[in-house]
Amino acid sequence: MPKPLDEFGRIARFFAPLAGKGALGLKDDAALIDGPDGTQYVLTADAIVEGVHFLPDDPAKQIAQKLLRVNLSDLAAKGAVPVGYLLTTALPKERGEDWLAGFAAGLAEDQARFGIALLGGDSVSTAGPVSLSLTAMGRVPAGRAILRSGARAGDRLYVSGTLGDAALGLRVLKGDSGRLPLAHMNALTERYRLPEPRLALGQALIGLASAAIDISDGLVADLGHLCDASGVGATIERALLPLSSAAQAAIAQDPAAIAAVLGGGDDYELLFSAPETAAPALASLAEKHGVPITAIGRIEAGATVTVRDEAGRPIDVKVAGYRHF
Amino acid sequence: MPKPLDEFGRIARFFAPLAGKGALGLKDDAALIDGPDGTQYVLTADAIVEGVHFLPDDPAKQIAQKLLRVNLSDLAAKGAVPVGYLLTTALPKERGEDWLAGFAAGLAEDQARFGIALLGGDSVSTAGPVSLSLTAMGRVPAGRAILRSGARAGDRLYVSGTLGDAALGLRVLKGDSGRLPLAHMNALTERYRLPEPRLALGQALIGLASAAIDISDGLVADLGHLCDASGVGATIERALLPLSSAAQAAIAQDPAAIAAVLGGGDDYELLFSAPETAAPALASLAEKHGVPITAIGRIEAGATVTVRDEAGRPIDVKVAGYRHF
Repeated sequence: MPKPLDEFGRIARFFAPLAGKGALGLKDDAALIDGPDGTQYVLTADAIVEGVHFLPDDPAKQIAQKLLRVNLSDLAAKGAVPVGYLLTTALPKERGEDWLAGFAAGLAEDQARFGIALLGGDSVSTAGPVSLSLTAMGRVPAGRAILRSGARAGDRLYVSGTLGDAALGLRVLKGDSGRLPLAHMNALTERYRLPEPRLALGQALIGLASAAIDISDGLVADLGHLCDASGVGATIERALLPLSSAAQAAIAQDPAAIAAVLGGGDDYELLFSAPETAAPALASLAEKHGVPITAIGRIEAGATVTVRDEAGRPIDVKVAGYRHF
Repeated sequence: MPKPLDEFGRIARFFAPLAGKGALGLKDDAALIDGPDGTQYVLTADAIVEGVHFLPDDPAKQIAQKLLRVNLSDLAAKGAVPVGYLLTTALPKERGEDWLAGFAAGLAEDQARFGIALLGGDSVSTAGPVSLSLTAMGRVPAGRAILRSGARAGDRLYVSGTLGDAALGLRVLKGDSGRLPLAHMNALTERYRLPEPRLALGQALIGLASAAIDISDGLVADLGHLCDASGVGATIERALLPLSSAAQAAIAQDPAAIAAVLGGGDDYELLFSAPETAAPALASLAEKHGVPITAIGRIEAGATVTVRDEAGRPIDVKVAGYRHF
């Protein structure tokens, strides 16, 4: 019997043949359609399910914010300005009005924070776990969206912020974190609970970045998606990966925790490529937006993603993103 | 303890305050945003869940078509031409590649039939029932979309096609249909299984209809939504409701089955209002599109929806649409 297809194999086999104009072959987690006055709309949709993407006891407010923010992060990777969203909720009857009030409060807070509003949706019941789906729209100047497919051999590879915090935060929540100081534990779990979509930075990367993706599946897995869409390979240097002080402490205690930095998901930082000449502009951007931007490697010809250790030896990366199937 | 809110109460309390420009106050099951060259996009989203909207053993192909068609029906009610859709699927691991192949085949067939293509989405796993969400986009000339809110006292009320077939078909599937001839049983169950979105008719109603809605919750419930959005009331005459020969046979056998015509959902016919002067144009449209268009009553001042029997007496309608909560 052939091995079952994973999520990406399923999309390639069953859904890619259905993709229309603007769908970017379903390889970009976003579609582009014409907007008014020299703009395009960027469309993206994500679903999250209780027991898979969040825990039954997670506060409703935080679930709402995570759902909205993972979609906003996809808009950020395209350089888009948020416009609006549609939301469908399938809720068991036990999720009563208190739960909904918390859920709506989370949306209201993030709508104000990120400048987006609800456009429509549907509200149905289910006998199963909470199942939520959100379609977000943003806008970009026509033809200027940053795609996954624009990376070229010789470009430098950059990431925003720090890596691995969310995956290490999940370890903390699972009680698997050794003896870290409380402040570090809080810093890590907060990153897991509430991603920060890099919208302003993404918008500023238009015209500078040759390709971009948000890190949801994990650094190596998402670099693979970017390289796949661009038809290139890449090498990253482990020594260059930006780590928070909390992540540094966790790795000092347990060197195997570096796997969370390379393979763990949910950071929602931007991973992008840019030509050498963009380096000074990127340094200014980092300062202006108060977000670290770190060069971590290079785009290369070929189709291989390699991680090298401090001695230049290739590292085998075991954890490479959550697999749904 | 106060009575729990139903689906519409929940939307009004928790979601309507989040609605942005173009969301039509979440009262129209569709949003309007600016498109290129004097157009607007119509956006709508619906979710369907195994065990609520379809049965576990329903063929995957038919589930896909129903999901797409209920959304296309919302576009039809606005007079929109389909453009594209985003789809999120939450599937248990047991739904393997055969199921997905059937699901994709249903989408492919209906994409070709209705002129729409996949733009993007997400594919996740769930431990619960199949949970599907679809966001559909259509386009209309700017400012010309048919809204729910345009009905005025004195307008005539019309429906396309025939009423009650889908609800009677569901009775047949549940083995609760008495002794109908097989051809009638097939005609009714087919209407339940596979709605026919009235896209061409809806597009032709632009400039003729003052308000429109597709009948998904049931005739009386959806007339209530239309009247609510327009700030009017309405009276419909039971004797005027268009019935298929299969529905006539079912009601002849069991007069209580008329409840399926007034209160049963899933017909996905268009219910619309139009000024008196539109009558000749509507008669031509019915002929051109091969779809019956039947005057069933009138829009009135006030806020009451009344159904009158053959003697002019008001009827109490018990079944008024599926309630999720």
